[in-house]
Amino acid sequence: MQTNISLEEAQETLLSLAKPTEIEESVRLEESVGRVLSRVIKAPYQLPPFSKSPLDGYALRAEDIEQATPEEPAIIKVIEEIHAGYVAKSEVVAGTTVKLMTGSPMPKGADIVIKYEDIERTADVIRVFQPLKKDSNVIFAGEDVAIDEVIANSGDIVTPALVGALAAVGIAMVPVYKKVDIAILSTGDELVEPSEALPAGKIYNSNLHSLRAACATLATNPIMMGTVDDNKEKIVNKLLAALEISDIVITTGGVSVGDYDLVPDAIVEIDAGIIFKGVKLKPGSPIIVAKKQDKFIIALSGNAAAATVTFQLMAIPLIKKLMGLKEYFAPTTKAILMSDFKKKSPQRRFLRGVFQIEYTGNSVTLAGSQSNGALKSMIGCNALIDIPAGTEPLVKGQVVSVILTGEL
Amino acid sequence: MQTNISLEEAQETLLSLAKPTEIEESVRLEESVGRVLSRVIKAPYQLPPFSKSPLDGYALRAEDIEQATPEEPAIIKVIEEIHAGYVAKSEVVAGTTVKLMTGSPMPKGADIVIKYEDIERTADVIRVFQPLKKDSNVIFAGEDVAIDEVIANSGDIVTPALVGALAAVGIAMVPVYKKVDIAILSTGDELVEPSEALPAGKIYNSNLHSLRAACATLATNPIMMGTVDDNKEKIVNKLLAALEISDIVITTGGVSVGDYDLVPDAIVEIDAGIIFKGVKLKPGSPIIVAKKQDKFIIALSGNAAAATVTFQLMAIPLIKKLMGLKEYFAPTTKAILMSDFKKKSPQRRFLRGVFQIEYTGNSVTLAGSQSNGALKSMIGCNALIDIPAGTEPLVKGQVVSVILTGEL
Repeated sequence: MQTNISLEEAQETLLSLAKPTEIEESVRLEESVGRVLSRVIKAPYQLPPFSKSPLDGYALRAEDIEQATPEEPAIIKVIEEIHAGYVAKSEVVAGTTVKLMTGSPMPKGADIVIKYEDIERTADVIRVFQPLKKDSNVIFAGEDVAIDEVIANSGDIVTPALVGALAAVGIAMVPVYKKVDIAILSTGDELVEPSEALPAGKIYNSNLHSLRAACATLATNPIMMGTVDDNKEKIVNKLLAALEISDIVITTGGVSVGDYDLVPDAIVEIDAGIIFKGVKLKPGSPIIVAKKQDKFIIALSGNAAAATVTFQLMAIPLIKKLMGLKEYFAPTTKAILMSDFKKKSPQRRFLRGVFQIEYTGNSVTLAGSQSNGALKSMIGCNALIDIPAGTEPLVKGQVVSVILTGEL
Repeated sequence: MQTNISLEEAQETLLSLAKPTEIEESVRLEESVGRVLSRVIKAPYQLPPFSKSPLDGYALRAEDIEQATPEEPAIIKVIEEIHAGYVAKSEVVAGTTVKLMTGSPMPKGADIVIKYEDIERTADVIRVFQPLKKDSNVIFAGEDVAIDEVIANSGDIVTPALVGALAAVGIAMVPVYKKVDIAILSTGDELVEPSEALPAGKIYNSNLHSLRAACATLATNPIMMGTVDDNKEKIVNKLLAALEISDIVITTGGVSVGDYDLVPDAIVEIDAGIIFKGVKLKPGSPIIVAKKQDKFIIALSGNAAAATVTFQLMAIPLIKKLMGLKEYFAPTTKAILMSDFKKKSPQRRFLRGVFQIEYTGNSVTLAGSQSNGALKSMIGCNALIDIPAGTEPLVKGQVVSVILTGEL
């Protein structure tokens, strides 16, 4: 067991022990968006599947109109008219053309398409007034995607655009990893559910709900385990029940060193191996991470901001690795700080901020109160500002490192 | 009816005719993430609900330890021990203290909390070796959120952090707007569903699936209406059926000027008023927007890229307004172009790109083929590069305007 380690040590240790959940399932295209591909997807068909016209026009042979001029137009006979979705029965031979629509397959023999607007038609002939280079106005079979071309890799998230590409190559069922099951439970005699009345001395449980929402947003399967009293036996039983039905158990509260901080004892009692205890950062240093067989327990602080920050910095990379994603960490960058922060940071500190893309230099603004328990300032927050240990107060205009944790 | 208008005219006209769907529903916290609030949310409780200790320690009166020194410590009697979630029965009077845990309510009479580590305890007394300023280590009731303080506004999206804040103030049921119902249908004899075999001359329908996924991602309720043949009567019937059960009908295909482009005729036939027809941009210029009573029809091109680009530029702002959101448009910024684009742009053109946040200057790279029908290049695309009409070929290093359409 490591204690009081750096964030990077914590992340590295945790990820080195995590293996992607390799259980696959096959879901309908409609259910695939947001899921993680479990296999390389190669195109069973090329795209487009055949050479076709990008416009409404006439398909013919470039050589038949090589000499065409406004004074001496080439006169070409219309032998068939087809529409997108249908294949011409005729072959285009010298002096003939097939009328077609946007998306129509190129008729055999033709190597160009001329727009309606560029010809004159009378009865069953067209007059063409100028030559056109071979292959003009033809979209070639396989131009976008070749047969067997890789269109997505295992570990890719299915986006709406990828759904479109999968559909286009005729893939109706999508191989994805099963959703990661994440059991979430809170500990604390002081906690009451939002649907209940609030007795004196009690507070509403918010972590359970915000963590559930964060897990749902990640396309995992969050399982609400409710709140457990500060009673070691009850915590032990709840942890065991949670481990039974999940890949990761996330707890909040009860991890400090106080007399009622029973989560560490419960973790020992169930024979889970503590991987590390305490990470050098603020807020959220009293985090404990343990493993029992191939399942993880991540015990977070009960303070709202502390729980959120450590969830983002440590639980999310673990969840992403189990999900089968290839990128575990939120993107990092630098930004211009738009606020003062008047405290020194003897410890490494993560401040909640609002990052904004700006052409003149991306900026980040402090998001209200930075206290461990503050909830309000997290509402619009999309970034964490990473302040190294031993930093003096920060001033507006300074360049800071940021982790992009939310939508921009 | 306006024809061949600018994108800005199209957006303005469309949004001026759209009204938010003001039907409310009340959903459980668990179902609220991603939804749009239909009401201002004021805190029924303050946060924290009572003044409390941020640490494990002893609550006492600052004046009792004013004279304390390491040599002459103040000696204070422990009269009660409480734990988070419980209220002290005793009042702290001169010379007394209550032991408490992180999160415990402040006992009456006490105005500071001293950490365990800073005192010495023997039996039922503690020794304090230095004074502490009044109010030290106290989190005050209402410090984070006051009673009746606005914590979110109608039109805000419910994020995981907001879910936490709602739970914290005891809100278990969340007032949201009903989901916008979006019926999606494709037209074209050439289209085949991905689950079917692909006959010669046919292509798989991808737009229906990618648009459905994009609508689902927006927390709307997409309704799959399937594919209709190029037959005006059938299109008329399908449009009428779609209007019956949706707020917006999105069609793809059949909007050009070809002989089989029957959607405009069908729109006229069902007595929907065409608002505009044709927007000056590439790809996707032959878009038609119509309205029948309070319902919209947005008829997009059948080309994959054209359908996606015009969906993003015109359908999404309309959908967002109907959803009750306050911001309808994707954020715009400037970026350094990382690729050459060798074509002139006589018309206004939107190129698909990959935007990247970089401290030295945000960049955008062209995302592969920019042809109207290309699907592959859209897979990793998160931005549209906005090229004004009359622009020469673009060179790497040039600054371009971008619209951020996807995740960064």
